[in-house]
Amino acid sequence: MSASTEEDQIQLLTSTDDEYSGVIVELMDHPIMDSTTFLSILRPSISNWKQQGKKGVWIKLPIHLANLVETLIKEGFWYHHAEPKYLMLVHWIADSANTIPANATHRVGIGAFVVNEKREVLVLQEKTGHFQGTGSWKFPTGVADQGEDICAAAVREVKEETGIDSEFVEVLAFRQSHMTFFEKSDLFFVCLLRPLSFDIKIQEVEIEAAKWMPFDEYAAQPFMEKYEVLRYINDIYLAKIDGHYSGFTPISTKSNFSNQPNSHFYLNAGGLKRSNSL
Amino acid sequence: MSASTEEDQIQLLTSTDDEYSGVIVELMDHPIMDSTTFLSILRPSISNWKQQGKKGVWIKLPIHLANLVETLIKEGFWYHHAEPKYLMLVHWIADSANTIPANATHRVGIGAFVVNEKREVLVLQEKTGHFQGTGSWKFPTGVADQGEDICAAAVREVKEETGIDSEFVEVLAFRQSHMTFFEKSDLFFVCLLRPLSFDIKIQEVEIEAAKWMPFDEYAAQPFMEKYEVLRYINDIYLAKIDGHYSGFTPISTKSNFSNQPNSHFYLNAGGLKRSNSL
Repeated sequence: MSASTEEDQIQLLTSTDDEYSGVIVELMDHPIMDSTTFLSILRPSISNWKQQGKKGVWIKLPIHLANLVETLIKEGFWYHHAEPKYLMLVHWIADSANTIPANATHRVGIGAFVVNEKREVLVLQEKTGHFQGTGSWKFPTGVADQGEDICAAAVREVKEETGIDSEFVEVLAFRQSHMTFFEKSDLFFVCLLRPLSFDIKIQEVEIEAAKWMPFDEYAAQPFMEKYEVLRYINDIYLAKIDGHYSGFTPISTKSNFSNQPNSHFYLNAGGLKRSNSL
Repeated sequence: MSASTEEDQIQLLTSTDDEYSGVIVELMDHPIMDSTTFLSILRPSISNWKQQGKKGVWIKLPIHLANLVETLIKEGFWYHHAEPKYLMLVHWIADSANTIPANATHRVGIGAFVVNEKREVLVLQEKTGHFQGTGSWKFPTGVADQGEDICAAAVREVKEETGIDSEFVEVLAFRQSHMTFFEKSDLFFVCLLRPLSFDIKIQEVEIEAAKWMPFDEYAAQPFMEKYEVLRYINDIYLAKIDGHYSGFTPISTKSNFSNQPNSHFYLNAGGLKRSNSL
């Protein structure tokens, strides 16, 4: 353990401060250690943080130190979140009310509505999933990777599933649904894309077939009856080509609340421009 | 443990099947048990699931059974996600490629732009956080609770922070930012609301002050210089009152991809209506 040595020679956990009077202990590269040793360092560390007026203690525990989970729970920690390789535990050591921020609650899905100049929709049939074996032709869908922009995820999924290069146009609409996987929620962004290539080459593992399908034929498929959202998307597309519908387009913004770079701000750019040009 | 008894009297973990050839073991109400006993049930259970052709095994382990985490990791499980009271572990027991779905990646934040008929914006100063002590007046913001709709979260935050009752109008724009808390991302929805009451009563713990502020005065605050997104929001509001800007309004939809009830689909309802009325 990289530990600081106090004057009285008690070994303490090395921590960094966060912006909310909390400390973060990062153990990802730490060698295996037994729980007795760990406890002998943890307890004086907590006393020390309390003396310093710290409120929250975060411990990022790698999966190879899973033997220490029980010890941390017994000392008052609880789970905050987990990823395959680590568990994040937290402990509120102040007397004040706990202000630990919430864990991630949503997954971000995208649906890619790619239409060419002949009003043909890029559609496919998947080898697994809800529509498997039904003969239904659906637009490409997928889940955004951790840290991936919605506009990038849509372009990537289209490329991966069909081999088609495309350009992001706008978010036509989005749907929020709850309890879609375990207790978690889902935000599904319906995206309009413009194709930049036309020769389809499917991803053989997941995709059964893909093709360009005339919009009217796509919209007339029997399963549309069952899915109100899909019918809305068809209406949106028709309004779009009539020139009445505006979705949200992404604008890259540098300055924002969290001071993180490369945020995308999605807005009705057409409506904004029209007003500014008055 | 509620366990089924096989012909050969081996005790097995009770599980339910998911839709993807996986099984889910739910131990939330299970009494404390030692790891040796657990292992003697876990191993034959896994053999049994393998024989049945199951692929993924999910174990929802409550925090009071934290002593079993190490055992599960040693048997090949890894972390999928965690919430304060439980840890979800998963193990891919099939020979095929792992298709375990991703964990939640986003938190959903809302900003509530509440403007009255006198073009006054509902603004406040917080006791903690980024703008604390700067004299800046900002619109109410917050984080959606697990399972909460964006439109409901906006109305709730306004009520909690200022005591004002309001009606949701539309999502004006949204921003996606990455790495905002640990490795996770953030979707921040800027919402327009119409006030239904006018007497402010602040939440004393978090809010220093709140008031109705003329829009021009709100928009002229020095900190606007620094935040491109806030300037966009001001432009959007001006375009909105000029009648040029359309955001996304929520429509409750029953039928959707995941067959979950009460999904909200957010779209440019004005653009859609105009086209349908042609």
